[in-house]
Amino acid sequence: MRTTSFRHISYLVDFLVSNGIEDVIISPGSRNAPLIIAFDAHPNIKTHLIHDERVAAFYALGMADASDKPVAVTCTSGTALLNYAPAVAEAYYREVPLLVLSADRPEELIDQGDGQTIRQTEVYRNFIVSSHTYSSLNDNGELEKALSNLINLPKGPVHINLPFEEPLYGIEERGVEKLAQQALKETPKLNGLKNLNQLETIWKNSEKKMIIVGQHNPDPKWSNVLQLISNDPSVSILVENTSNVQNFTRICHNIDRTLAGIKEDELEKFQPDLLISIGGAVVSKRIKALLRNYKAKNTWRVGNHLIEEDTYQSAAHMIHIEPTDLLQHLVDIDQTPNSNFGSLWKQRDFLSQEAHERYMSTIPFSDLKVFQQIFDLIPDNANLHMANSSVVRYCQLFNPISGIEYYSNRGVSGIDGSSSTAAGFSLKVRDKLNVLISGDISFFYDSNAFWNNELGDNLKVIVISNGGGGIFEFIAGPPSTDQAHVFFAETNAIVQGICQAFDLNYLVAENEIELNDSLQTLFYSSENSRPTILEIKTQQCENARILTSYFEYIAEQNA
Amino acid sequence: MRTTSFRHISYLVDFLVSNGIEDVIISPGSRNAPLIIAFDAHPNIKTHLIHDERVAAFYALGMADASDKPVAVTCTSGTALLNYAPAVAEAYYREVPLLVLSADRPEELIDQGDGQTIRQTEVYRNFIVSSHTYSSLNDNGELEKALSNLINLPKGPVHINLPFEEPLYGIEERGVEKLAQQALKETPKLNGLKNLNQLETIWKNSEKKMIIVGQHNPDPKWSNVLQLISNDPSVSILVENTSNVQNFTRICHNIDRTLAGIKEDELEKFQPDLLISIGGAVVSKRIKALLRNYKAKNTWRVGNHLIEEDTYQSAAHMIHIEPTDLLQHLVDIDQTPNSNFGSLWKQRDFLSQEAHERYMSTIPFSDLKVFQQIFDLIPDNANLHMANSSVVRYCQLFNPISGIEYYSNRGVSGIDGSSSTAAGFSLKVRDKLNVLISGDISFFYDSNAFWNNELGDNLKVIVISNGGGGIFEFIAGPPSTDQAHVFFAETNAIVQGICQAFDLNYLVAENEIELNDSLQTLFYSSENSRPTILEIKTQQCENARILTSYFEYIAEQNA
Repeated sequence: MRTTSFRHISYLVDFLVSNGIEDVIISPGSRNAPLIIAFDAHPNIKTHLIHDERVAAFYALGMADASDKPVAVTCTSGTALLNYAPAVAEAYYREVPLLVLSADRPEELIDQGDGQTIRQTEVYRNFIVSSHTYSSLNDNGELEKALSNLINLPKGPVHINLPFEEPLYGIEERGVEKLAQQALKETPKLNGLKNLNQLETIWKNSEKKMIIVGQHNPDPKWSNVLQLISNDPSVSILVENTSNVQNFTRICHNIDRTLAGIKEDELEKFQPDLLISIGGAVVSKRIKALLRNYKAKNTWRVGNHLIEEDTYQSAAHMIHIEPTDLLQHLVDIDQTPNSNFGSLWKQRDFLSQEAHERYMSTIPFSDLKVFQQIFDLIPDNANLHMANSSVVRYCQLFNPISGIEYYSNRGVSGIDGSSSTAAGFSLKVRDKLNVLISGDISFFYDSNAFWNNELGDNLKVIVISNGGGGIFEFIAGPPSTDQAHVFFAETNAIVQGICQAFDLNYLVAENEIELNDSLQTLFYSSENSRPTILEIKTQQCENARILTSYFEYIAEQNA
Repeated sequence: MRTTSFRHISYLVDFLVSNGIEDVIISPGSRNAPLIIAFDAHPNIKTHLIHDERVAAFYALGMADASDKPVAVTCTSGTALLNYAPAVAEAYYREVPLLVLSADRPEELIDQGDGQTIRQTEVYRNFIVSSHTYSSLNDNGELEKALSNLINLPKGPVHINLPFEEPLYGIEERGVEKLAQQALKETPKLNGLKNLNQLETIWKNSEKKMIIVGQHNPDPKWSNVLQLISNDPSVSILVENTSNVQNFTRICHNIDRTLAGIKEDELEKFQPDLLISIGGAVVSKRIKALLRNYKAKNTWRVGNHLIEEDTYQSAAHMIHIEPTDLLQHLVDIDQTPNSNFGSLWKQRDFLSQEAHERYMSTIPFSDLKVFQQIFDLIPDNANLHMANSSVVRYCQLFNPISGIEYYSNRGVSGIDGSSSTAAGFSLKVRDKLNVLISGDISFFYDSNAFWNNELGDNLKVIVISNGGGGIFEFIAGPPSTDQAHVFFAETNAIVQGICQAFDLNYLVAENEIELNDSLQTLFYSSENSRPTILEIKTQQCENARILTSYFEYIAEQNA
C-alpha cells in the first residue's frame, strides 16, 4: 500500500489493527495528514469522515459502545482536540474505550506564535485514563501502555498526542504487518477475595437486601443471575431501563414511578440492611435521596471501576470483582431469611404500575402521552437511544420492553452529544433499527450529528418539540422565579430546516391520530436510504401540568 | 429586585457590575439557577440566552473583543463547561477577557455517581490565566484575584467554579449595591527599562530594521507611530489586515503576496539586522519561515503578553512595555542611517501588487475572483470578520481597505467558532455592518451560531461553497496522496436548510453577474430584520489551479 513515510505511524496503525481496532473517525486537517494517510491506506481499517470534532468523538463513543471495541478519533492540532472533550468525559464516566489521536507541532514550536497550537499535553487530565506522547518508534513503551489501558478493565478513554515535523505528506510503499496481540491482564477473581467469609455472613444475616443496578449494556449473564436471585424473598432488585435487565416479575423496573407511591412516613420500611450497587450511573434522583437518608448498615459497591463511588453516602465497601461472580456465589448460599422485603418493594411497584395505567387512559395529547404511543408501537428488536434531560426521565416511567436495548449518555448526562452517539451506534449495527428520542434543545444542540453521508435508514429520530426546556417540567423551582422565560427557553428554530440541510426525511405529528400514523411510517416503512426525523409538537404548559398530576395521582392511589 | 437567596452570588453580580461587566451569556441549566436568577434580575446586566455552550463562549469572545470589556458566560455543571474550552483557548492566545462562571456540585458529591458531574477544578489549566473556586462570601479574595487578572494587562480568560448546594431556586428581595471599583495595576513604563541606552544604540546601529505587526485591534496610537516611523528609510514595516494599521504608502500590507515576488537567491537581501515584533499572531507562514532561516542579529518582542514567544527563533529579547511607548521614543532619536532597506521591501510589495492586479483582470469566476468582487463592493465602514482556514489566507492577498476593521480568531486559528465570534461581535456594535466571510466547512461546523433570536440585520454572512476543504488549495501535499478525497472532503450539506432552521434570509450567486447583484442586495438593502446569508458557489478544481497560477505569475513578473 502507498502509506505515510512516517514509519512510527505505519507501526501505530499495524499495532492498533493487530489489537482489534477496526474503526477510525477522521476530522481532516493538515497536521494529522500522516495519520489520515496511514489509516485510509490500511486495508483493515474503516475510516469515517466527520468534520465537527465534538460530533466525531461522540460518534466514536457510540461505535465503541455498540461494538465493545476501542474506536479511534484523529484530529489536527489546536482547538480541534478541545472539541473532543465532552465525549472524552462521557467515555471516562461510562468506561467506554475511546482512543484520541491528536496531531501536534514539535515541542519547540509550542507557544511560539504558530497557528493551531496550544499546550496539548495532558489536556484531558481531569477525565482520562491515561495520556501519552508518541513521536517515534523508540516510544514503543507508550503505545503498549496506552493500549493496555484501552483493552483492560476498567476501560475508558486514552489520549495519545503525536507531534509531527513537516513535511507531512511524504509517501512510501510498504506492506501490512501483523504484530503480536497484546495479552490481556488477569481480572480479579472471587477466590481472591480475602473477606469472602465475612461477606457471606453479612449476606446471610441481612433480612432486607437490596441490589440496585445502574447503567449496563445487555448481558445475559447479568439477567440470569438477577432472575435467580430475585426468587429470594429477602432481596429487592431495583433496575432502570438503562440497566438492560430483562423484565422479570420480581424485579422493580421503574424506580421513580414506584417511589412516587411511597409516603414520607413509610420510607423507613423500605430501607435495606444490605445494599449492593452494581453497574454504572443510576438515573433516579429519588432513590439516591432515599438511600442517602435511610442508609444501609452495609453497602457493597461491586465491580472493577475507574472511580470508587460511594453514591449512597453509606461508607461503601469496594469489591473489585465482576458482579455476577459474587452474585452467583451468594445465590447458592443456603439461607432461610424471614423476610418479605423483596415483595414489599415489588408490591408497591405493581400498585404504581396500575395507577400509571389508569392515569394514562385519562390524559390528552402531551409529552407523557407521546411516550406511551411511542412505546406501544416501537418494534421490539430496536435499540432505543434516549437523549438526556427530560427524555430519559420520561422513559423511566414506562415498563421496559422485552427485546429493546436501552442506551443513553448517562456518564456525565450532558445535553450535548446524544444524537451523535446514537448515530455512531447506528453505523455499527446496520441491521438493527436505532430509534433516538430527543428533546428539541438537544436535537438542535447536536444537529451536526447528521452532517455526513454515511448514515442510513436504520436511524430514526423522534424530536419532541415542546418549545424547549422540558426538563424544567420535572423541577419545581423555575416557575417560582421571575426567570421562567430563561429556564423554559423557547426555541423558534425549525426542525425541518435541519432536515433540508442534511438530507433527512421529515415527518410531523401534532395530535394522537397523526402521531399513530407517522410512527407507523417511521418504524415500518423502508423506502428511504437516509435517516428520518419525526417531529412531534406538544404544548409546554399542558406538559408540565400533566406530569405534575401524574406523580400526585400515583401518590393518592397508593394512599 | 427579587433575586437569588445565595448572598455570595448577589455580591458576585454587584461586584462584576461595579467593575464594568455589562453582558452575560446564559446557557440554561438547573445547577446554575442562582447565577441565572441573579444576573437576570440585576438591572445593569444584559443577559443573552444561548443553549450551545461552544457557541456561547465564542459569542462572549466576540462581544469582549468588540467592547474591550470582560464578558461573562455561565453554564451548568458537567460537560457544559467543556464545550467552552475552544473559545477559552482562543481567548487565552488572543488575550481577550472572557470570564467563565461554571456551576458545580459541592465537593463531596464529585465522583460519587451524581449526574452532570466531572472534576471541574482547573479543567482549563493548559489555557487559562487563572482558575478560582468561589463558594461563599468568605472567599472574597478569590473574586478580587480573578477580576484583577481579567482587567489588567495582559488580559485573558479567567475561570471561577461555583459549587452550589440544593435548594437552588431560593429567592429574596434586595437592592442593588454599588461596590468599590477595583484599582488597576500600574503598567510598566519606558523609563523603567534598565537597558534603554543599549536598545537605543542597537537601534542607531542597525541599518536594516524591520517592524512586524501581528494581530491588533484598531488603535490610532499604533497607526500614528507606525506612519511616523515608516518615513525612516532604514525601517521596513510589515503588517497584515488583522494588524488594523492604516494603509500608509511606505508600509507593506500584503506579506504573502510580496514574498511571492522574491526569489530564493535574493532572500538574504531582505534579512533584517533588527527585528521588532509587536501585536498578536501573524497569519503569514512564509514570513515566519523566512525570518527563521535568515535570523535578525537582534530581535525584540515588545509588549506585555501572557506568553513569551520567540516566533522567529532568534533569541528574542522580551521588552514588557506598551509597544507605542518604545516606538515613539525611537522615532525621536537622531540618526542618519545609510540604508534603503524600507524601500527595498516596499518596492517589492509594489511590484507584486501590480502583478496581482494584472492577474486578477485575466481570471474567471473562482474563489480568488470572489474575494476581489467582495472587496470592490463592501461598504468601507464595515467590520470584516474572516473565518479561519482558506478565507483568512485569501484575504491576505488583497490591499486592506481604509475604514474597514479586520477581525479573525487568530489566537489558535481553529475552524470552530468564527461565525459565533462574528455574531457576538455584531450584537455589541448594532450600528455597524458586520460582514463575515466563511468557507462552507466552517459555516456548517458553527451553524448553531445562528440559533438565537437576538441577531439583527447588521450581520451579513458570505459562505463560499466550494465543496469543502479549500484550505488544501494552499497546500501542495494532499493531491500527491491517495487521500485527496479525505482532505478535500466534499460536503453535500445545503446552506439554505440552515437558513430555514434559524430564520435567516438567503441569497445565492453562481457567477460574476449574480454575485455583483447579490452583493449589492447584501450590503445595501435593509428590508430585513434578521441576518442574511449569501452563498457563493464556485468550482473546487478551478480554484486550486487559479490560486497556484497566481503565485507563479507574481514570481514570474518579478523575475
